[in-house]
Amino acid sequence: MTPIDLGHHGDSEVEPGLVDFAVNVAVPRPPAWLRRELESALDEVARYPNVAPAVDALARLHGCPTDCLLVTNGAAQAFTLIARARRWRKPLVVHPQFTEPESALRANGHVVTRLLLEQDDGFALHPSRVPADADLVMVGNPNNPTSRLHPRASILALRRPGRLVVVDEAFMDVARGGDDSVLQDAIQDEGLVVIRSLTKTFALAGIRVGYLVGSSDVIAECALTQPQWSVNSVAVAAAVACAGTQGQEHTRAVRQDLSLWVSDLAARLTLAGLDVVREPAGPFVLVHHHHAARLRDGMRRRGFALRRGDTFPGLGPQWLRIAAREPAMTDALLAALAQELASINHDRHDNAARDQESENLA
Amino acid sequence: MTPIDLGHHGDSEVEPGLVDFAVNVAVPRPPAWLRRELESALDEVARYPNVAPAVDALARLHGCPTDCLLVTNGAAQAFTLIARARRWRKPLVVHPQFTEPESALRANGHVVTRLLLEQDDGFALHPSRVPADADLVMVGNPNNPTSRLHPRASILALRRPGRLVVVDEAFMDVARGGDDSVLQDAIQDEGLVVIRSLTKTFALAGIRVGYLVGSSDVIAECALTQPQWSVNSVAVAAAVACAGTQGQEHTRAVRQDLSLWVSDLAARLTLAGLDVVREPAGPFVLVHHHHAARLRDGMRRRGFALRRGDTFPGLGPQWLRIAAREPAMTDALLAALAQELASINHDRHDNAARDQESENLA
Repeated sequence: MTPIDLGHHGDSEVEPGLVDFAVNVAVPRPPAWLRRELESALDEVARYPNVAPAVDALARLHGCPTDCLLVTNGAAQAFTLIARARRWRKPLVVHPQFTEPESALRANGHVVTRLLLEQDDGFALHPSRVPADADLVMVGNPNNPTSRLHPRASILALRRPGRLVVVDEAFMDVARGGDDSVLQDAIQDEGLVVIRSLTKTFALAGIRVGYLVGSSDVIAECALTQPQWSVNSVAVAAAVACAGTQGQEHTRAVRQDLSLWVSDLAARLTLAGLDVVREPAGPFVLVHHHHAARLRDGMRRRGFALRRGDTFPGLGPQWLRIAAREPAMTDALLAALAQELASINHDRHDNAARDQESENLA
Repeated sequence: MTPIDLGHHGDSEVEPGLVDFAVNVAVPRPPAWLRRELESALDEVARYPNVAPAVDALARLHGCPTDCLLVTNGAAQAFTLIARARRWRKPLVVHPQFTEPESALRANGHVVTRLLLEQDDGFALHPSRVPADADLVMVGNPNNPTSRLHPRASILALRRPGRLVVVDEAFMDVARGGDDSVLQDAIQDEGLVVIRSLTKTFALAGIRVGYLVGSSDVIAECALTQPQWSVNSVAVAAAVACAGTQGQEHTRAVRQDLSLWVSDLAARLTLAGLDVVREPAGPFVLVHHHHAARLRDGMRRRGFALRRGDTFPGLGPQWLRIAAREPAMTDALLAALAQELASINHDRHDNAARDQESENLA
């Protein structure tokens, strides 16, 4: 079996000219008030960055002490800091999932155990399936690419003495059911740490800004190996602005929009004949189709980039991830999809007829 | 003995209202053409960063293959990547030096050996003083804070089979004597790697952009533990612009200015009665004065931030680092310095007189 390319991400699927349904950034650009803050930050770039205002603002937002929060150079750095925080004996990653946690563990010399969630029950999380001796458990909630929201109780049930549970809540701020976040639990609990990101909701993937929330002891462990000045000045300004009133209004508006868009997307894809993983809570859906690989290629020719599923452990070529977008874009997607599916069915019908003909001739 | 605070840097000495002679950023802000590039990059921040254009541009600048160059989230990340690249048995840092290399090694679990250069011969580098079994040697050239330029031959003489020599050339692009760079040697030699930075010459400390140059094997080792998307989009745009024609013209102009300013600064400080480490090649000077700590405090009261020397291993409270600045700023500095020195001498004279008086009375 060819090893899965864990380094593959949606961004590499979006060539110029393609409409992007592959990357999970919620809006096409930062809102105007945020853009102004980013530009102001450029006035101060001669100075070394000072992350303190970002820590203060985010800690205030979440009502936690500043030593329970570590701002990182994107969530990707957070995975690396966790990979290095201890000599993990049995680190486990719950798949299918964003591949960076496993990549970070491997790059830092760890042998990773995978727990594969199962299609049959909609990729639900069963904490009892995690081996008792796993001392690090990394899980996404809502999970990428399944878009499933695991109940808070299931996440909390992963805790064990001597184990650190790391919950990637990169999409939680715009998810249906924000009550399932364990961020407040993590502040109190040395066995739990949460990763958040400002990348998706505020269209800041290029700026790199994420953060860890946990008990002060765990945060100190993660901070130990973080290089000096990891968080750039523009990211600091962005974090301060996003944690403020306008930022939180933006988050609410995006969450409301995405919640409608994703329901609509799921319903229409189901009607079109695709098998959608149920109850999508994140800003994207995971779909299954017998000819998904061909569908993806055909959609690229029609100008639409969909995220391939076969680079996620536990999935395969019959899976695609599709981002929720504004209604006009979704209309265009569905129109092209209907045509592509008709073309696939037509060819299959032709092939079936030809096979029948060959059989008759034989 | 109180352990030295390796996490102390010049940026923390510059409170609002103080004229900054503490931080080694060469210009007060990026040039206008560069600022425009940074702003343009903000148009694309919704996308994940793509570092390839920066690698291409810098590789072209240095005439090296792209796999011999790794762009990093500031030079600080480069130190961390090197600290992690191998299980170093005996990593050695040549001091006094920028403290981040040692901090990065320690944070990643290494026990660091220090080689202290000596004041008596102007902090010259004697390769034979490095223990034969050191398998990692980290040295700055021109060195911060001594501003000494080590001859290329001395750097090359540090090489040994099984040893990696890491040369921090963060100030080389604006140094007197750029011919002493070993960047071209590093491309060919698996025992040598060079760190560069765009932070100082282009006033981009807040943006974070540095890079490593070495043989493709060493670069691959360092890249292995670099988190995904480490270099932000604004840093990529900056690197492309700085490596271009305007960037190189800017570098030449800054080098020419700094070279004059640093000579002038050294000469005037010497005249004022300070002991300046000879032949400063970087954009700053290291000075010795019996009452340096008091001098620094007094200069702060007069509105000038000088970099304390006592947080550099191998130096002490009698040392200060002073950045080269444009002539008007240097004039102001020297005027205040003359007053402060007079005040110190006056007090000493008073004290001496009082001591004499007490003695006479006794």
